Amino acid sequence: MLKKQFYNILHSVLVTKFIYGLILINVVALVLETNQELRVDYNSSFEFIEYFSIGIFTMEYLLRIWTADSHNDIKGIFNSKRAGYIFSFYGLVDMIAILPFFLPLIIPFDLRIMRILRLFRLFRILKLGRYSSSFNGIKNVLKETKPQLVITIFIASILLLLSSTLMFYAENEAQPEKFSSISDSLWWAVATLTTVGYGDVYPVTSLGKFLSAFIALIGIGFIALPTGILSSAFIDNLKPMDDSIKRACPHCGKR
Amino acid sequence: MLKKQFYNILHSVLVTKFIYGLILINVVALVLETNQELRVDYNSSFEFIEYFSIGIFTMEYLLRIWTADSHNDIKGIFNSKRAGYIFSFYGLVDMIAILPFFLPLIIPFDLRIMRILRLFRLFRILKLGRYSSSFNGIKNVLKETKPQLVITIFIASILLLLSSTLMFYAENEAQPEKFSSISDSLWWAVATLTTVGYGDVYPVTSLGKFLSAFIALIGIGFIALPTGILSSAFIDNLKPMDDSIKRACPHCGKR
Amino acid sequence: MLKKQFYNILHSVLVTKFIYGLILINVVALVLETNQELRVDYNSSFEFIEYFSIGIFTMEYLLRIWTADSHNDIKGIFNSKRAGYIFSFYGLVDMIAILPFFLPLIIPFDLRIMRILRLFRLFRILKLGRYSSSFNGIKNVLKETKPQLVITIFIASILLLLSSTLMFYAENEAQPEKFSSISDSLWWAVATLTTVGYGDVYPVTSLGKFLSAFIALIGIGFIALPTGILSSAFIDNLKPMDDSIKRACPHCGKR
Amino acid sequence: MLKKQFYNILHSVLVTKFIYGLILINVVALVLETNQELRVDYNSSFEFIEYFSIGIFTMEYLLRIWTADSHNDIKGIFNSKRAGYIFSFYGLVDMIAILPFFLPLIIPFDLRIMRILRLFRLFRILKLGRYSSSFNGIKNVLKETKPQLVITIFIASILLLLSSTLMFYAENEAQPEKFSSISDSLWWAVATLTTVGYGDVYPVTSLGKFLSAFIALIGIGFIALPTGILSSAFIDNLKPMDDSIKRACPHCGKR
Repeated sequence: MLKKQFYNILHSVLVTKFIYGLILINVVALVLETNQELRVDYNSSFEFIEYFSIGIFTMEYLLRIWTADSHNDIKGIFNSKRAGYIFSFYGLVDMIAILPFFLPLIIPFDLRIMRILRLFRLFRILKLGRYSSSFNGIKNVLKETKPQLVITIFIASILLLLSSTLMFYAENEAQPEKFSSISDSLWWAVATLTTVGYGDVYPVTSLGKFLSAFIALIGIGFIALPTGILSSAFIDNLKPMDDSIKRACPHCGKR
Repeated sequence: MLKKQFYNILHSVLVTKFIYGLILINVVALVLETNQELRVDYNSSFEFIEYFSIGIFTMEYLLRIWTADSHNDIKGIFNSKRAGYIFSFYGLVDMIAILPFFLPLIIPFDLRIMRILRLFRLFRILKLGRYSSSFNGIKNVLKETKPQLVITIFIASILLLLSSTLMFYAENEAQPEKFSSISDSLWWAVATLTTVGYGDVYPVTSLGKFLSAFIALIGIGFIALPTGILSSAFIDNLKPMDDSIKRACPHCGKR
Repeated sequence: MLKKQFYNILHSVLVTKFIYGLILINVVALVLETNQELRVDYNSSFEFIEYFSIGIFTMEYLLRIWTADSHNDIKGIFNSKRAGYIFSFYGLVDMIAILPFFLPLIIPFDLRIMRILRLFRLFRILKLGRYSSSFNGIKNVLKETKPQLVITIFIASILLLLSSTLMFYAENEAQPEKFSSISDSLWWAVATLTTVGYGDVYPVTSLGKFLSAFIALIGIGFIALPTGILSSAFIDNLKPMDDSIKRACPHCGKR
Repeated sequence: MLKKQFYNILHSVLVTKFIYGLILINVVALVLETNQELRVDYNSSFEFIEYFSIGIFTMEYLLRIWTADSHNDIKGIFNSKRAGYIFSFYGLVDMIAILPFFLPLIIPFDLRIMRILRLFRLFRILKLGRYSSSFNGIKNVLKETKPQLVITIFIASILLLLSSTLMFYAENEAQPEKFSSISDSLWWAVATLTTVGYGDVYPVTSLGKFLSAFIALIGIGFIALPTGILSSAFIDNLKPMDDSIKRACPHCGKR
């Protein structure tokens, strides 16, 4: 069967590695292309990479749709495995990876939208996710700790709001242009609580400095919270396999 | 019974979500209102949100007092469940959320105090705490590790004092305006130990740089301490429930 | 016996709390005193606190020497519990807390040494350690993880040296005044690896930026290492007490 | 046997400590030598240290090759323990430590290459690794967590790329000289995600600030991930040895 053969070719080690490499080349090209000098000097190379990639990714996308019914992992919707692939996460990623090229050929866009469409090429990087099976460990940990992490985010939001409001009242008079509104002092609050501290905004009044010191110290606890939560989850997730081997059941002696 | 009906309405999913949403709108409005341009342009909208919120929060507060005796969770004081609610944490929060509006109507204040009273609107955010039941996990961990965290804070205080005193003597001559007193160099010490590093104050002498490098390196251990403490507590608190379920022996079914 | 009575007074809750408070007042005074304005305005207050504290601390020191033989915890040396106290850690701390006051009365010093002697007043803060018994948990953890932490420090030293050497060669030409020697670029390396990032020194060349980015990313792992080590040690140290209660011995049934 | 005697001398405590100390002196000299003033003033001292070290390290290298067949730990290749040593990690390190001195005597180099060759003296620090046996604990932990850490690095790369691409489009117009290309905004992304925050590049537009705040907050999770992974691995690696000793039942003596 021709379809089965194409399916096997598409999932062969060679083709997989080739697409994997092409994605990496695309990412590098995308980064280098924004450099004005390089864009002018190597314009034809960038164009070649783009046209070549579009060709390969389009072929890949069409083959994946065609051979979807040979794939066991795909859940069918609307009684169809093909629709199942098209509307799956990686199906959509595969489409978005090529769509920005074909869309302007059908509908004429103005330059503004064209520019945003070019951004979508970035999503090609998400195609890499398909080839990595080890994400699952980290994904499980994040899923398991979701309620605690959500609370942490909620606490962080309240902390950010409270500190930026207080800071606004403390520093507004001394630095009206830097702490002109609470949304402005939110920028300071994020930079302080995350300990980034760019240095573009910082308190100058004594009250502001005292508040800032207090918030920076709390920021350390704020870093400690998600770390503690994730640590405990990783211990849960990475250890059990060892444990089940090591611990003999005290009742029946088997492991 | 009318009271029971009102109690049920107050605790219905719809009313709960409505108040929840209203609090969030209040927080957003509070942030946006401090932006001068927005305050002028959307003055009437901000006023409407404020008056409407005060109306709802006042009604909510009065209803909560009235229906307090239908609530099982409230502990009564002075032989009264109503007094129990009024002096409970969320009872006080509910009052503080509306009081800054009504107080100036009774007693005339000068502008200075009015401004501070406006700050109290911020505490409306604490009303959100009522709707979140998942805080408990994190609260337990913090309560359990309180003695260790207190020691960490104590060690941090000594570190901050020692380093800012030494730094004052090292840098005072070279930068008399930035390290003018120990309380001034405390500001530097906090920015360094928490690794925020705004860049408004930094040592320029060799001795100062050496001290600063030493303190920054200790700062990493200082971040590591609370993280380690919290991690171990989270492991204690989040795991046991799973363990009792999971640890059944797969061979004999016993635990 | 008079000595026993004095011993009991010295270790009574009231006297303990009084000395505890006096130490805190001393620390606050030390910080405030460096503020030029406050020193001029409240000169007599600072002098009163100093003379009063010296009086109390001297009396305390002499009483502790005299009553040392009533104390069970003190290990005697030279066949004497008094010598044991005098040469113990807190005995030396107690002496250093008052010595800088009496020494200039005996030997005349020049101003330079006088200034350093004033610094010794800071060590009064160490007297606080006597009243805290909860340090032990953290002290045990640090002692237990010492070998791993020492290795971390060693790795950090190599990282700092390697990165500052490479950075020196990368940035020396572009910024000869900021990266004038390896010891200068060590200052940059510490600021980057600890993620403090004051912003007084940063790379401007492409190679320097690439190196810096690489080192900053490694810095995260460098923060993660001691945290992970301390976490695991805290779990070891804080849990066992619970464990010993919960876990019945499978052999004899006792806990 | 002469060779055995030399082997024993080479591995004696005295010679080991001497070489250990010489490496440390070399590192300190390397750092100080880059200081222009010191280089001029103490030129002869630096030259003496260099010639003396080269002499010792060359003798050590030759002796190690000669006595390699007396060493049990060395795996032979090409049927030879000597080749096994020469091509082992520390064999190569030992060679690189002296090669930059002898190479220019054989082949004449221009100044540019000479300068890079001088850099190789830095690798003498790696000779220290031979004397530390406690690296193993940390090495095991890193080896064990390699797959998870690799994923973390991969996630970090995607985060860095996504955020710098978005930031490039957000800030390019407002700050064309600082966000001139994606590779330029990568520098910003690293400084933010690692919370270093030098302050040389930061967003000024509202959209840029919003993105930056978002990325800084994610940065905290990004620090938490490797820490959590390493913590759980350390618990696995550092505890078991204690457990088997401690877990004896205090009542019946059995484990």
